[in-house]
Amino acid sequence: MLYLVGLGLGDAKDITVKGLEVVRQCRRVYLEAYTSVLTVGKEVLEEFYGKELILADRETVEQEADSILKEADVCDVAFLVVGDPFGATTHSDLVLRAVKLGIPYRVIHNASIMNAVGCCGLQLYNFGETVSIVFWTDAWKPESFFDKIKKNRQNGMHTLCLLDIKVKEQSLENLMKGRKIYEPPRYMSVNQAAEQLLTIIKNRRLQGEEPEITENTICVGLARVGAPDQKIASGTLHQMSTVELGGPLHSMIVTGSMHPLELEMLKLFSVDSCSNSENNAFKRTA
Amino acid sequence: MLYLVGLGLGDAKDITVKGLEVVRQCRRVYLEAYTSVLTVGKEVLEEFYGKELILADRETVEQEADSILKEADVCDVAFLVVGDPFGATTHSDLVLRAVKLGIPYRVIHNASIMNAVGCCGLQLYNFGETVSIVFWTDAWKPESFFDKIKKNRQNGMHTLCLLDIKVKEQSLENLMKGRKIYEPPRYMSVNQAAEQLLTIIKNRRLQGEEPEITENTICVGLARVGAPDQKIASGTLHQMSTVELGGPLHSMIVTGSMHPLELEMLKLFSVDSCSNSENNAFKRTA
Repeated sequence: MLYLVGLGLGDAKDITVKGLEVVRQCRRVYLEAYTSVLTVGKEVLEEFYGKELILADRETVEQEADSILKEADVCDVAFLVVGDPFGATTHSDLVLRAVKLGIPYRVIHNASIMNAVGCCGLQLYNFGETVSIVFWTDAWKPESFFDKIKKNRQNGMHTLCLLDIKVKEQSLENLMKGRKIYEPPRYMSVNQAAEQLLTIIKNRRLQGEEPEITENTICVGLARVGAPDQKIASGTLHQMSTVELGGPLHSMIVTGSMHPLELEMLKLFSVDSCSNSENNAFKRTA
Repeated sequence: MLYLVGLGLGDAKDITVKGLEVVRQCRRVYLEAYTSVLTVGKEVLEEFYGKELILADRETVEQEADSILKEADVCDVAFLVVGDPFGATTHSDLVLRAVKLGIPYRVIHNASIMNAVGCCGLQLYNFGETVSIVFWTDAWKPESFFDKIKKNRQNGMHTLCLLDIKVKEQSLENLMKGRKIYEPPRYMSVNQAAEQLLTIIKNRRLQGEEPEITENTICVGLARVGAPDQKIASGTLHQMSTVELGGPLHSMIVTGSMHPLELEMLKLFSVDSCSNSENNAFKRTA
């Protein structure tokens, strides 16, 4: 049996009781390590589970799926995923390969950023399409996510923006020389995401467009959702470019139309809440 | 401290290790019992947790929130919710009330139907607005959810349809006579939801509209997601009106545009897969 087990979002204890039992009974346990991170490392998980974990990076999963599935028809193999196995990244490839090999599989679900963002008080059923915001490079500055956010907002929907993660990336030089030397991991912050959005807004204005989303649009920055030190900050897009949220992972929401109850919840997390500023973002929208 | 603890979707062991520790340390533990159900009852949960649970129906939470929060500033109180506390139904009211009373709160997340539907292979970031399909009565047959599904589909997005739950409802007669006699709980099946959609399509055609969604639109029926006996069936909307999925809870997805990998996953669950019917829904769309 192949078990796909969600680990949730915080630390070792966010696994479900059922998931923990499965991990402890499996012959081999893989930890998917390229689409998300917990606030604790592999060693902490190994100690808590009482099991050795095999790190599975993107290459392993894509190129060595057969070794992951080896003998899974006669023994139990677990594939652990931060969040839910079918959350922001699906592992359909591995499932389809297992099915083709006649290996049964089972999913042990858990919270993922896709549903845990509800903790800020915005209602999940009011979200439109989720977008990914990627790190811009000198040569590549895609804006397509902006148009998706715009469309959601025109429809009154909120947009969850998943922020880029660069793990085990090679520099162009190392890639071209075939050297397997990897850059340090990079995680996009809410500040960086907001800066990119502000740049797009500026570009659009230069093109004569008055964008649906402006520096005053209410957004929510979320960091380390589900962890004891999670941080949520609501305010304008402009405020998101400077808000301090600490370490990764970050996500951002661009709001659409808001229900009074949603607005009341967001006020709990207002970056303005300490000051009595007349410029308070929520006073302006309320 | 007020803890809002998600129980996940299947049985007692779908609580997280962290959630279980919290439940065991709390002075009072409430079980929210009106927006969803587990495959096991209160007694099974009580035995597994080693704790007595206080059932909180809609009336309790709305009218007696203060008794739920009583002394939560000096002791620990847990409020258990099937799925995630901020999943399909948010418990913002309780949180806002706690904050006003100066009571700190914490959320222990878990899987909810809002993210666990990903197990059918449709990618969560391709879902648009979520809709609720309510039981029609003789006098009240709303169609507004149909227009939301249509809009999502026009944008290429899938739609998760949450199906109605009637728990602790009074008949009109008992309601008018003030008798607190409740009807047996009712849970909408995928068959019933599909029938209502087919009726709307018929109505729209009579009005001269050629609906975006037809009896041949690919849909997914899901039952008891996360439980060992979960069932997923993909096929046309017409097929959804007769597919056998067993007991509650059911959900349904109306698909939008599909990626080849999504289509391949859905084929795993095709209601046609046993037959070699030339009429196979996926042959037609592929």
